[in-house]
Amino acid sequence: QGGVAIAECAACHGEDGIGKDVEIPNLAGQHEVYLYRQLQHFKSGKRSHKEMRFESRQLSDADMQALAHYYSQLPR
Amino acid sequence: QGGVAIAECAACHGEDGIGKDVEIPNLAGQHEVYLYRQLQHFKSGKRSHKEMRFESRQLSDADMQALAHYYSQLPR
Repeated sequence: QGGVAIAECAACHGEDGIGKDVEIPNLAGQHEVYLYRQLQHFKSGKRSHKEMRFESRQLSDADMQALAHYYSQLPR
Repeated sequence: QGGVAIAECAACHGEDGIGKDVEIPNLAGQHEVYLYRQLQHFKSGKRSHKEMRFESRQLSDADMQALAHYYSQLPR
């Protein structure tokens, strides 16, 4: 689950969860529920961000849970 | 600068930058520019969040910069 999606996220957020630019947040060790909520908000538009809206709209709920879990487990 | 403000933020985000609830993001070691931008967005309403809008509206630009710097310097 979420395998392909992780590769897409890693382009900006890194496989290690360290953002690749100063405007891109680190996700490593972030709270899982917080990450999952943000993905939901990007998808619903509650939180606005061009790239994240585009990316999140391609994710199923299961993908979002898998990604939130993946990044939350990485060492901060 | 930001002294009083840090105490207020720490109530939810911790002085160590570790969120005190699963929905509250860790801020420790986060990218400074990203943190500063989020505070601006909460204040302007570009990013909506009840508590953060209330808190950020009490912050000057200098406070926001000091807070972003403070949390970005903490060990992840």
